[in-house]
Amino acid sequence: MGSWTRPTCKCCISKAVQPLVALELIEDINMETKRWLMTRIQAEKIVGGAELMVHPGEDDDGNMLLVSASQHVLLRAAEVVGLYKLYKDGSMIAFSYRDSRNFQNSDNINEFLTLAERQFIILRTLENIKVVDEKYIPGYPTETLYPGEAIFNRLQKSKILHTFYPLHDEQILCKLGARWHSYTNLSLQPIDSIYSYFGGSVAMYFSFLEFFTCSLMPIAAFGAAVVLLSMDTIDKCILFSVFNMIWSTVVMELWKRHSSVLSYTWGTMQMNSQFEEPRVDYKGSMGINPITHRYQPYYPAWRRKLKIWCVSVPVLCLFLSFSLFGMYVFFRMEALVKAYYSENDGCWACVLYLPSILHTLYVTGMNSLYKMVAEVLTEWENHRLESSYQNHLTIKVLVFRFVNCFAALFYISIYLQDLELLRKKLASLLVLTQIINQLIETSVPYLYKTIMRKGAGLKKMTMENTPDIDKIKLQGEMSSFPGMFDEYMELFVQFGYVSLFSCIYPLTALLVMVNNITEIRMDAMKLCHLFRKPFISPAANIGVWQTAFEIIGFLSVISNCFLISISPQVEGYCAENNITPKNVLIWTVGIEHALLAIKIILAFAIPDVPQWVKLRIERVEYQSLQALKHKLAEADKDDSREMAAKETLSDGTTGFNSAESSLYTSNKQLNLL
Amino acid sequence: MGSWTRPTCKCCISKAVQPLVALELIEDINMETKRWLMTRIQAEKIVGGAELMVHPGEDDDGNMLLVSASQHVLLRAAEVVGLYKLYKDGSMIAFSYRDSRNFQNSDNINEFLTLAERQFIILRTLENIKVVDEKYIPGYPTETLYPGEAIFNRLQKSKILHTFYPLHDEQILCKLGARWHSYTNLSLQPIDSIYSYFGGSVAMYFSFLEFFTCSLMPIAAFGAAVVLLSMDTIDKCILFSVFNMIWSTVVMELWKRHSSVLSYTWGTMQMNSQFEEPRVDYKGSMGINPITHRYQPYYPAWRRKLKIWCVSVPVLCLFLSFSLFGMYVFFRMEALVKAYYSENDGCWACVLYLPSILHTLYVTGMNSLYKMVAEVLTEWENHRLESSYQNHLTIKVLVFRFVNCFAALFYISIYLQDLELLRKKLASLLVLTQIINQLIETSVPYLYKTIMRKGAGLKKMTMENTPDIDKIKLQGEMSSFPGMFDEYMELFVQFGYVSLFSCIYPLTALLVMVNNITEIRMDAMKLCHLFRKPFISPAANIGVWQTAFEIIGFLSVISNCFLISISPQVEGYCAENNITPKNVLIWTVGIEHALLAIKIILAFAIPDVPQWVKLRIERVEYQSLQALKHKLAEADKDDSREMAAKETLSDGTTGFNSAESSLYTSNKQLNLL
Repeated sequence: MGSWTRPTCKCCISKAVQPLVALELIEDINMETKRWLMTRIQAEKIVGGAELMVHPGEDDDGNMLLVSASQHVLLRAAEVVGLYKLYKDGSMIAFSYRDSRNFQNSDNINEFLTLAERQFIILRTLENIKVVDEKYIPGYPTETLYPGEAIFNRLQKSKILHTFYPLHDEQILCKLGARWHSYTNLSLQPIDSIYSYFGGSVAMYFSFLEFFTCSLMPIAAFGAAVVLLSMDTIDKCILFSVFNMIWSTVVMELWKRHSSVLSYTWGTMQMNSQFEEPRVDYKGSMGINPITHRYQPYYPAWRRKLKIWCVSVPVLCLFLSFSLFGMYVFFRMEALVKAYYSENDGCWACVLYLPSILHTLYVTGMNSLYKMVAEVLTEWENHRLESSYQNHLTIKVLVFRFVNCFAALFYISIYLQDLELLRKKLASLLVLTQIINQLIETSVPYLYKTIMRKGAGLKKMTMENTPDIDKIKLQGEMSSFPGMFDEYMELFVQFGYVSLFSCIYPLTALLVMVNNITEIRMDAMKLCHLFRKPFISPAANIGVWQTAFEIIGFLSVISNCFLISISPQVEGYCAENNITPKNVLIWTVGIEHALLAIKIILAFAIPDVPQWVKLRIERVEYQSLQALKHKLAEADKDDSREMAAKETLSDGTTGFNSAESSLYTSNKQLNLL
Repeated sequence: MGSWTRPTCKCCISKAVQPLVALELIEDINMETKRWLMTRIQAEKIVGGAELMVHPGEDDDGNMLLVSASQHVLLRAAEVVGLYKLYKDGSMIAFSYRDSRNFQNSDNINEFLTLAERQFIILRTLENIKVVDEKYIPGYPTETLYPGEAIFNRLQKSKILHTFYPLHDEQILCKLGARWHSYTNLSLQPIDSIYSYFGGSVAMYFSFLEFFTCSLMPIAAFGAAVVLLSMDTIDKCILFSVFNMIWSTVVMELWKRHSSVLSYTWGTMQMNSQFEEPRVDYKGSMGINPITHRYQPYYPAWRRKLKIWCVSVPVLCLFLSFSLFGMYVFFRMEALVKAYYSENDGCWACVLYLPSILHTLYVTGMNSLYKMVAEVLTEWENHRLESSYQNHLTIKVLVFRFVNCFAALFYISIYLQDLELLRKKLASLLVLTQIINQLIETSVPYLYKTIMRKGAGLKKMTMENTPDIDKIKLQGEMSSFPGMFDEYMELFVQFGYVSLFSCIYPLTALLVMVNNITEIRMDAMKLCHLFRKPFISPAANIGVWQTAFEIIGFLSVISNCFLISISPQVEGYCAENNITPKNVLIWTVGIEHALLAIKIILAFAIPDVPQWVKLRIERVEYQSLQALKHKLAEADKDDSREMAAKETLSDGTTGFNSAESSLYTSNKQLNLL
C-alpha cells in the first residue's frame, strides 16, 4: 500500500475523496487492532459497521487513520441526525434521503452539507458503532467488551484510541481567515461561512459577539457624552440608567429574533433534540424509545431531577458560601492591613497588596476546583442529550463565577454604599481586562508562529510539497479546543459591568466596545490557528446564556435604581427638599417595580420569532399533519371503502321515513355514486 | 308533510335523526326565503351547500328550521375543524376521515363525537355557507348580497334569521343534572360528562372552579387556625403570608398540569387554531392562506398590532384615569360628609351612605360603558380567530375591572396605611358577596320554575306527550348564555382577596371556599336550566385567565410583604429592638425580591405538562415528521431511483485507485445490488 506522497494518490486525496476526520491511535498500535477497527468502520450496517471510508494514514508510526464517507452514506446519516435543509418550495424541512433530489443543490454534496455538518455526521456515525460479538478488543485480551457497548467510547477510555479530530481544509481556512480576522477588513464577519466551516455554536457565538458589540454603540456614545459634557446632574444620571435598562431589554429581545432567523436559515431551529441519539456517556437500561421506537438506553427523568435538586444544588450553595466567606475574610484582612500599615510606617507598602493577592489566589483555586466538581456532578446527573449536559454544566459554573465576579462589587455598593470605591474598582477592572486582552492579543500571533515552528514550521505548512499526512499530524499536535464557555463568560461579565453599574461609570460601554472589536479578531485567530478543529453540533441558539443575559437585565433594574437612590446627587436633592430617606426608598422601590413591569411588557410585546419564520414553520407543521393523516389512511385504504359500503346499507334505517326524507339530502348516496 | 306529533315521525326524530341545532327565522318569514335557505343548507358542497339535513319545524308560525347531519358529514367536518381523537394505538391524533375506522369507537357517532362537538361542527359548517351567485336574498330584493359573503352572518345582520341555537337533550341533561348540581351529592363534578354535553370552555371553567375550591382547603384551615388560636404574633403573620405566596404559585402551576391533562384527553390541546377557519366577522382581502393554502380573507398582523398599541391601550388608560378620579372624588366626599355629619348632628345618618351609593353608581356605569367600548374596539382590531378575539376582549375588561375592584383597597393599605379600615372593608366585601350569592342561589330555582311556567310549564315539559317542537320553542325563549366572563371575574376577584390581603384577614380563604361550594351548583343550575344551550368551541386552557391569576400571584408577594412591614406587630417589634423604619423597608424589599425569585424558580421547576403527555405528543410529532418525508418521497419514488443509478456511474471517478480502493467498502454498490 503506497504512502500519501505518491502523486497519483495525493491528487485523488485532495480532489476525489477528502479525508474528513483523523483518528490517532497509540504509538505502538497492534496491527490486529488497527485492522479490526478499520473493518468495523467500513463494514455494512447489517454487521454493525458504519459504512464509512477509512484509510491508513501511512505515516511513519502508522498510528493514524483517516475517515471519510461517500455521498450516499452522508445523506442517509444526515436524515438520521435529523438535519433540516432547504426544500424546493423554499421552506426548511427535515431532510429525507428518499426525497433528496427535491432538496436544493443536494446533488453537490460539498455544497449541500457544510464541512462542519459532514464532520459532525461522521462523528455521530463513529460514536454509534456498537460491539456485536467481540468478547475483548482484538489484540488486547485484557480489555473485555460487552455487547452493545460503544466501541469508540471504550477505545478512548482504554487509551487505545489516543484522540480523533475533524481536519482543517487549508484553502477554505485561508479564504475564511482573510475575510474574518485580518485587521485590514472592518466589515462584519462572514457568519454564514463561519457556520459552514466551524458549525452552529461557534457561528452563534461570533454572531452574538458582533451583535452585542454593535448594540453597545448607542449606549457608549451616550456614556461618553455624559462624561465629556460632564452632565453629572441627577436627571441626566437617572435618564442614563433608565435608557440603560430599556436598552438591555431591547437588545436581548432583538437578539432572540436575530438568532431565530439565523438558526432557521441554518436549519438548526426545528431540529428536535428529542429525536436525537443519546450522548455517548449516557447510561441507562436499554429499551425502546417511546418517541422514535429506536432501541436506546433509558433513564427516568425524575431520578435526574432528584439528583439535581438534592445534591447538585446543595453542593453549589456550599461552594458559594465558601467563596462568600473568602470575600468576607479578604475585606477584614484589608482593613487590618491598612490599620497596621498606617500605625507602623516602617513596613513596606507592598504589604497592602497582600490581601488582594491572597484573595485572587483563593478565588482562582476555588474556581478551578468547583469547575471539576461541577463536571463530575453533571456527568453523574446522566443527561440524555449533549445540549442539556452542556446547559446544566454551564448553569452550575455560571452561577458560581457570577457570584465571584460581582459579590465584591455588590458588597461595596449595597453594604458599604461607597460609590467612589465602586467607581475606582470598576474602572480598574475594566482597564485591567483591557490591558490583559491587548497583551494576549499581541502575543497570540507570536504564540502561533512558535507553535508552527515547533511543528513542521510555518514555511513548510504553506509549501505545496509538504506531505499531507504531516500537516494532519501537525493539527493533531495542536491543543484541543476548550469550548466557548470562557468566551461567553467574558461577554457575560462585561454585560454585567455595563448594565449593572454603568450609571456609576458611564465610560464602561465604550471601553467594553473597544475591547470587543479586538476580541472578535483574537477569538477568530485562536479558533483558526491555535486549536485543533472542534466537532461542533448544530445549535439553535446560545442556550442558557440567553437566560443568563436576561437575568442580568432584570438585576440591572434593581441595582441601577438602588445606586441612583444612594447617589450623592439624589441625596443632595433630597436634603434640599427635605425628603426623608424612607420616602426616597419608597419612591425607589416604586420606580423599580414600574421599570420591571415595563421590561416584562416589552419582552412580551416584541415577538421572539419574526412573522415570516413563524409562517413557514406553521406551514410545514400543517403539511406534516396532513401527511400523517394521508399515511395512516393509506395503511388501510380498501378497509375504509368496505366501511363506506357497510354504511350505505345501515343508512336506510337511519334515514327519515318517506314523509320527510324528501327534505333531506342524504348526502351519503351523493358521494358514493 | 306531517308534523312532529305523528308517532311514526316522533320515533324517528327521537331515535333515528336527533335534531342538533334550531334556526329561528322572523315571524312572517317569506316561504321562498325559507325554502332557499333549506336548499342551501342541504345542497352539496360542489354547489356551495353544507350537505346537512334540515327539517321545517312544522310549528304554528312555521319560522323554525331544525338542522342535523349524517354520520359522514359530521366525520368529514370533524376533520376540517381539526378535532383530535383517540387513535387505536392510544395516542391522540388529528382525526382523518379516510382513516376513521382506526379511531376508537368511530363507528358509533354519538359516542365518537360528543353532543357539543357535533353542534359545534354544525355551527362551523353553517357559518361557512357562502353566497354563490345570488344577487340578493330570495324574497327580499332590497337585501343585496356579494359573492363569497357568509350567508348566516348576513341573514342575522338583516334580521331575517332571528337566532339559532344548539338543542338540549333532555334525557342526558337530567342524568347530568342529578350528578352535577343536586345538593344530595357531595362528590366531585362529572367533568367529562360536562365536557361532552356543553363543550371545552364550560368544562374548563367548572374544573378550574372545583380545583380552586379544593386548593383553598389548606389555606382556609391555616387561616382558621390563625384566628381561632389567635396566633396574632409577628412570626405567625409572616409565616402565614409566606405560606400564602408559595401556595398561590404552586396552585397555579398544578392547575396548568391538570388542565393540560384534561385538554389532552379531550383532544383540544394540540388543535392548532392557526389551521382553523377565521371567525365570521373577520374582515380582510381574500387570498391564499400561506399555511393551509385555503382561500381565505387575510389581514396583516402589524396593522392589528398598530391598532392595539396606538388606540386600544390609550383608550383603556383614559378610562382607568376616569375611574381613579372617581375614586378620589369618592374619598374626598366621604371625608366632607363625615365632617359635615359630626358638625351638625341634626341631619340624617343616611347622608353618610350617600358617597358610597354615588360611587357605586358611577363605577357600575363606567363598567358597562367601558365594556361596550371594549367590544367595539376589539371588533375593530379584527382578530382572525374567535379565541384571540375573546382573549383581547377579556384582557381589556379585566384590567379595568381589576383596578375598580382593588384600587380602593390598595389606596387604603398603601396610602392611608390603615389596616383596620382595610380589614373592615375586606370583611364587609366578602360577607356581602356571600349574602348576595346566597340570595341569588336560593332565587335561582324559583326563577327557573317561573320561567318554565311562563313557557309550556314545568309539568308539560316533563310530560311525554308534549310536542317536541314546543320544547324546542321553549328553549328559544330562554335568554342566551352570557358567557363565562362574569364567573371568571368573580373567581378572579376572590383569588385577589385571598392572595393579596388575606394576611390581614385570614378568614378570607374559608369564606371564599364556602361561597364556591354553593357557587358551583348555582352556576351549573343556571347553565342547565336558565339559559339557552350555548355553542362552545373546544378550549385547550382557560386562556388569558391563567396569566391573570399568575399576575395576581406576583402582586400578592408585593402586597403581602408591604402589609406585613406596616403591620402593628412588626412596628412594635422594631420599636423594641429600635430598628429604623428605613432599615425595615430595606429588609422588606430584600425579602420581597427573594420571594419573587423563589416564585419564579418554582414556576420553572414544576413542568407545565406531565411527562407522559409530553412523550405522547412528541411521539405523534415524530410520526408526522416521518410521514411528511414518506409522502414527499412517494411523490417521486422512481426519480430518486434514477438518481441512485446515476450515482453509481459517477462513483467510479470518486473511488480511490486500485492501491487503496481495496480498503474501501464502496457501500453504494452494496445497497444497489
